Amino acid sequence: MSEIEQLIKSINNFRDERNWRQYHNPKDLAISISIEAAELLEDFQWKSSEEALKANSENIKEEIADVLIYSLMLCSELDLDVEQIIQEKLEKNREKYPVRKE
Amino acid sequence: MSEIEQLIKSINNFRDERNWRQYHNPKDLAISISIEAAELLEDFQWKSSEEALKANSENIKEEIADVLIYSLMLCSELDLDVEQIIQEKLEKNREKYPVRKE
Amino acid sequence: MSEIEQLIKSINNFRDERNWRQYHNPKDLAISISIEAAELLEDFQWKSSEEALKANSENIKEEIADVLIYSLMLCSELDLDVEQIIQEKLEKNREKYPVRKE
Amino acid sequence: MSEIEQLIKSINNFRDERNWRQYHNPKDLAISISIEAAELLEDFQWKSSEEALKANSENIKEEIADVLIYSLMLCSELDLDVEQIIQEKLEKNREKYPVRKE
Repeated sequence: MSEIEQLIKSINNFRDERNWRQYHNPKDLAISISIEAAELLEDFQWKSSEEALKANSENIKEEIADVLIYSLMLCSELDLDVEQIIQEKLEKNREKYPVRKE
Repeated sequence: MSEIEQLIKSINNFRDERNWRQYHNPKDLAISISIEAAELLEDFQWKSSEEALKANSENIKEEIADVLIYSLMLCSELDLDVEQIIQEKLEKNREKYPVRKE
Repeated sequence: MSEIEQLIKSINNFRDERNWRQYHNPKDLAISISIEAAELLEDFQWKSSEEALKANSENIKEEIADVLIYSLMLCSELDLDVEQIIQEKLEKNREKYPVRKE
Repeated sequence: MSEIEQLIKSINNFRDERNWRQYHNPKDLAISISIEAAELLEDFQWKSSEEALKANSENIKEEIADVLIYSLMLCSELDLDVEQIIQEKLEKNREKYPVRKE
């Protein structure tokens, strides 16, 4: 089992031990990603990057983890291969933003 | 190199070929995660989960990928181990939400 | 009719001429506020405030308008008095953050 | 003084009594609108509109107020006329989404 599959398995175990899957429809998972992303952003509110990292580095770590956890849950729910969707998006971005040759 | 390290390497290569690292301070990366999370959410606006998946499944895939790409970029920028921060957050959540034993 | 009531009337007219009220449940209106707020934020992505205002001032105006339009729609849907909820929130904030006397 | 000007005056007074204007650059105000919009959205997480209103109606009121407070602050900071930007956006939307005549 790959590293990412392993992580998704840990996340889904956590969810299933609490019987939470019933609430986890894709729309509410997408809502949850936005909420966690905003909680991460809150660590940077009224601050420069440096000030934020100095004041909130522990919480920044946890909020990024929350964004990742919900994103991986949504991938699992929709049967998406994490590596594949990232590589395909990078490929698309490469076409959209070609490297300028001098 | 692990699967996640490999993904981060692909992402950072994409960024560095375009000389974009200069813009990628942690605060703007956190902003970018919020923006992409909202673009994902837009696929579900005025729709049920089922309607959204039917109408927008291709775009949903791309927007989740964008959230993951910026989140992994921020992990890389802050020298965070993705697997570790997820496992630590799950551990913290386990303590916060103990499984109810019947 | 007060200025704000007049604005809400214009907004609701726009909606009703298009028969959109059927989609405008409070949850999707809250989702829409988040989406518009992120579109506003996008005007500031990778930029200082000054750079953003120079590059995107026209769009910034429109995105703030969109945030306000959906927020007023939600107030109208929930029968909330805009002036009252703002004054009550300011009162609560005054208690939470008392002015420091020298 | 109009109703909205009066509200903005109350909001700015609250800010100035606490000497907070120094932090309130447009980029951080835009960030703050996104954060408050997500806190509003949190009241609807894992819930239908009806369940959310039943469980969280008091907090929903406060979070809409926070979105409005920061949006009005940003209008004031950028010298935007609230009524004018809303009417102009509605006009633009009317052109973008013409009413279908039967």
